Amino acid sequence: MQINGKPYHTIWLSDENPSVVQIIDQRKLPFVFEILDLQTPEDCFHAIRDMAVRGAPLIGVTAAYGMYLALLCFRGNDPEKYLNETATRLKSARPTAVNLAYAVDEMLKFMLQNLLAANLKEISLANVEEMKSCEISFSEKIGEFGLKIIEDIFQKKQEPVNILTHCNAGWLACIDWGTATAPIYKAHRKGIPLHVWVDETRPRNQGARLTAFELGQEDVPHTVIADNTGGHLMQQGMVDLVIVGSDRTTVTGDVANKIGTYLKALAAKDNGIPFYVALPSSTFDWQMEDGNTEIPIEEREADEVAQIEGWNGKSIQLVRLIPENSQAVNYGFDVTPARLVTGLITERGICKANRESITALFPESRINKVQISKNK
Amino acid sequence: MQINGKPYHTIWLSDENPSVVQIIDQRKLPFVFEILDLQTPEDCFHAIRDMAVRGAPLIGVTAAYGMYLALLCFRGNDPEKYLNETATRLKSARPTAVNLAYAVDEMLKFMLQNLLAANLKEISLANVEEMKSCEISFSEKIGEFGLKIIEDIFQKKQEPVNILTHCNAGWLACIDWGTATAPIYKAHRKGIPLHVWVDETRPRNQGARLTAFELGQEDVPHTVIADNTGGHLMQQGMVDLVIVGSDRTTVTGDVANKIGTYLKALAAKDNGIPFYVALPSSTFDWQMEDGNTEIPIEEREADEVAQIEGWNGKSIQLVRLIPENSQAVNYGFDVTPARLVTGLITERGICKANRESITALFPESRINKVQISKNK
Repeated sequence: MQINGKPYHTIWLSDENPSVVQIIDQRKLPFVFEILDLQTPEDCFHAIRDMAVRGAPLIGVTAAYGMYLALLCFRGNDPEKYLNETATRLKSARPTAVNLAYAVDEMLKFMLQNLLAANLKEISLANVEEMKSCEISFSEKIGEFGLKIIEDIFQKKQEPVNILTHCNAGWLACIDWGTATAPIYKAHRKGIPLHVWVDETRPRNQGARLTAFELGQEDVPHTVIADNTGGHLMQQGMVDLVIVGSDRTTVTGDVANKIGTYLKALAAKDNGIPFYVALPSSTFDWQMEDGNTEIPIEEREADEVAQIEGWNGKSIQLVRLIPENSQAVNYGFDVTPARLVTGLITERGICKANRESITALFPESRINKVQISKNK
Repeated sequence: MQINGKPYHTIWLSDENPSVVQIIDQRKLPFVFEILDLQTPEDCFHAIRDMAVRGAPLIGVTAAYGMYLALLCFRGNDPEKYLNETATRLKSARPTAVNLAYAVDEMLKFMLQNLLAANLKEISLANVEEMKSCEISFSEKIGEFGLKIIEDIFQKKQEPVNILTHCNAGWLACIDWGTATAPIYKAHRKGIPLHVWVDETRPRNQGARLTAFELGQEDVPHTVIADNTGGHLMQQGMVDLVIVGSDRTTVTGDVANKIGTYLKALAAKDNGIPFYVALPSSTFDWQMEDGNTEIPIEEREADEVAQIEGWNGKSIQLVRLIPENSQAVNYGFDVTPARLVTGLITERGICKANRESITALFPESRINKVQISKNK
C-alpha cells in the first residue's frame, strides 16, 4: 500500500545493502514517518519487543528476517548453538504471539537441515521471502473474498457502504493489504464508494494512529471515533458492516481480538448488522473449544491506560490522564463468542463461525487435531 | 464530599464575601485543584459555557446564583429588562441542558414577582440556597435507595462488590453525593466493601479525570479502565453491578446518557448483570415516548476526539491523537433502550424502566402530561 504516494511493504531488504532489513517505525506513526535499519538479530528482537513492528503476521516475518541476519552476523565455530540461541532470544520478544514462535521455528529447522549447504544464506533468504509472499497472498485472498460482501451491500444500497473497524488489522499489521482492511482496499480500488468508521482503540490508539493513517494514505474516506461511539452509530443506521481482525480463533469460532471488539459485536447483533472477522488460517487455534475460558488474555502495563502519547506540535509527548493516586488496569484482548459472528473471512473463503463450517473449509485441521490428541 | 480531607460542595457563597460565589474549576481536575470566584452573571455564564462547572444539577444551581448576582450587580433604571436579558444570556450558555433553563426561569419568575420587596436580595438568595438543598437531598435519597441494591449483593456474595460506572455522575456533577455515585458513597461509609471500575469515558475523559478523582478523595477503592474493557470484565465475572447517570429519560424508560453507555448496557444484559440508572426525577422527559427517534443527540467539537488533555509533569497539555488529514466526529450521548435497564433509582425509590412503573412512582406526571397535551 502507499505512503506519500509511494508503494511500501512493512518490511523489506534494503535495495542498497542486501545485509540490511528495513522497517517502518510504527511507534512514531502517524506523526513521523521514519524507516529503521535492522542489521542484527538483536535489532530485530528490539524492533519486535519495543513495538516498532507489531501485528502477528509482521512480527513473524521480522523474526524470520532476524534468523537470516543471524547467518550474516555469525562469526564463531558453533553455528548450531548460535542459531538455537538466536531463535530462543527472538521468540522471547513477545511471548504471546503464536506465529512469532512458528516463523522462528520454521526458519531454525530449515537452517539446521541445510547447515552444510554452500548457498545456505541464499536459500534462507529465499525462505524468508517466500514466507513474506505467502502473507501477502493470504491478505489479498481475504481481500477478494471480503470484497464480495461489500459489493453485495452496495448493490442493495446504491449508496456509500459504511464499514466500522476496531484497532489496526491493516496492512501495517501485515506485509501488505491487511486482514480487516484488505476487503476495504479491494473495494475502494474497484470504485465502490465506501466510508470507514475507525475506532480509536484505547489504550494504545492503533485505530486513531495506524488505521486512520493507512486509510488516509490510500485516500479511503474515513472518520475517527471514540470507542464509545459505535453503538450509537449502529442504532442510527450509520453502519452497514463491521469487519475486525483476530489474534486467536477457536475451532468453534470464538474470536479473541483487541479489547472492545466484543462490545461492538454485541451492538452489531442488537442492530442486525453483519459482523465479520477477517483472518489468515494461522490465527486458528485448533486445540481450543471455548474462547472465554481457554484463551489467555494478555494483561499489559497499566501505564498504557494511565497515560497517552500524542503530538504537541513539535514532538511526540506522553501525558498522564488519571489522578496521581488512582490505579489503572489494562487487558489487551477480549473474546467475542461465535454466536455474535456472522462469518469468518479466510484465505480459502468465507465460513460460518462454527466447527462444522470451519473444519469443512480446513479439513486438514481434523487430522492435525487427531494427531495432536494422540501425541498427548 | 471531601477534597484533601476537607468537605466541599461544588458551589457555595464565599464565607468572607457574601457577594462572591465560589466554584471548583473542574477543567483542571485532577491535576490542579483551584477555586474560582464568580462575581457577576457574566462570570457564571462563562463558568457554565467553558465547562468550569458541568453536570445538569450543578449547571442549574450555578445559573440560579448568576441570577442572584444580577441583583447585586444591577445599577440602572429598568431591573425587569436587565433580569430578563441576564436570564436569556445565562440560558444560552449550554442550550441543551434542560434544567439550566428551568432553574433560570424559576429564579426570574420569583424575582419579577417580588421586584418591589425590600428584602428581594435576601429572599432570592434563600431561593437559590433552597434549590441547592433540594439537589443535595435528592442525591442523598438516591444514595439511600441505591444502597439497598449494593447491600443485597454483598449479603449474597460476602466479598467486595464490584461496581462499574461510566462518565461522571458523581458529586462533581451535582452539589454533593452525586447520582450514580451516591449509592457507592453511602455503601462505602456504611463499611460495605466495594470496588469501582471507572470507565475513562473518551473523548472528554470525565471518568478518568473526575470520577477517579472524587472516589480517590473519599478513599473508595477504584480502578480506571479504557472504555473498551467493561465487556471483558463482565464476561469474566468481575462486575456485580453497573450504575450510571442519565441526561434525559423518556416516560417509557429509554435512557440518554454519555456516549458508550448503551454498549455497557448490552454487555450487562449479555452477562446477566444488573444495570441501574440513578437519576433525579427532573431528568424525566414526560413528553417523550421513544428515546432513539426523539431524544436529540448533541454533536460536539470533533477536536475533543482528535486531541486530548493530560498532565505533562508541569502543566495541562493538549496533544493531537489522529493524523493531520483525518476527520473525527463526536457524538455526546447515546440512548440505552428500556429493555436493557434493570431499574431506575430516583429520589422517590426504585422503579422499573417502563411507563407503568415510572408513572406509579410519579403519578403527577400523568396529570401534567394531560395538561400539556390540552395546551397544545
